[in-house]
Amino acid sequence: MTETVADAAHATFTIERVYPQAPARVFNAHADIGLKRRWFAEGEGFTLHHYALDFRVDGRETARFSFEGGPEVTMEMVHQVIVPDRLIVIAYRMAMGDQPISASLATIVFIANGGGTRLTYTEQGVYFAGGGDIQGREEGSRGLLERLAEVLAEGG
Amino acid sequence: MTETVADAAHATFTIERVYPQAPARVFNAHADIGLKRRWFAEGEGFTLHHYALDFRVDGRETARFSFEGGPEVTMEMVHQVIVPDRLIVIAYRMAMGDQPISASLATIVFIANGGGTRLTYTEQGVYFAGGGDIQGREEGSRGLLERLAEVLAEGG
Repeated sequence: MTETVADAAHATFTIERVYPQAPARVFNAHADIGLKRRWFAEGEGFTLHHYALDFRVDGRETARFSFEGGPEVTMEMVHQVIVPDRLIVIAYRMAMGDQPISASLATIVFIANGGGTRLTYTEQGVYFAGGGDIQGREEGSRGLLERLAEVLAEGG
Repeated sequence: MTETVADAAHATFTIERVYPQAPARVFNAHADIGLKRRWFAEGEGFTLHHYALDFRVDGRETARFSFEGGPEVTMEMVHQVIVPDRLIVIAYRMAMGDQPISASLATIVFIANGGGTRLTYTEQGVYFAGGGDIQGREEGSRGLLERLAEVLAEGG
């Protein structure tokens, strides 16, 4: 682990997405454990072993899951900044067993857009050799924001 | 606060610095509370009101200080990844009272360089309007790494 992990690659990406729901609704889907679990942690092909969310500054979110029978992956997040209905900044890391995959800072900005919301998701991260997949992270994040749209449309 | 804080600017900078001391020594100056406090929290013009360091994954570092009689500033850090003598990833945020200034992810890589150490410090951060000073942050970080050199030279 130690040889590869110091080979750290940094990357930043931004995704913009407009939702028809108001900022308070879109924000709430990040704050409510039942809603967040649905769009963030429960996905096709994923087996979720553990999920917890404590939505407050310094509060954590943990997800342990496997994808299509693969090894267990752990996501550990801690909330850094919360401005209700406007802004969330989180720090999170991914690991496979003892092997760190990545560490990231993500900024989520909610701006009123007509009756809806323009959400801007910016992730600044460091990816460790053997685990990091920068391209896949951006695609995965885009998929999660799409899944969020579905949960909101279902009334979440 | 809420109007300005959603105006979030992202930036990344990297600083490289070579120290004559071996990686274990330079790493230890990040892990040992007495040493870290000296180069990181005690500076000319700074009044330190509180300092704490719990050097382990998920362990926190807190510094509350004023600069030249100014308002109290709080730094709250949490360790994300630690590989002894090789790598530290931290997430930290700065605030002035309730006003967030910034949130950052910093990667510190320690590579043996002859008998010394090449340290690479990469900070990926988000800066909020009214508080953020990207240029100042890079200069400040450079100053801290210079101060680290002095503490190491003094036998730290």
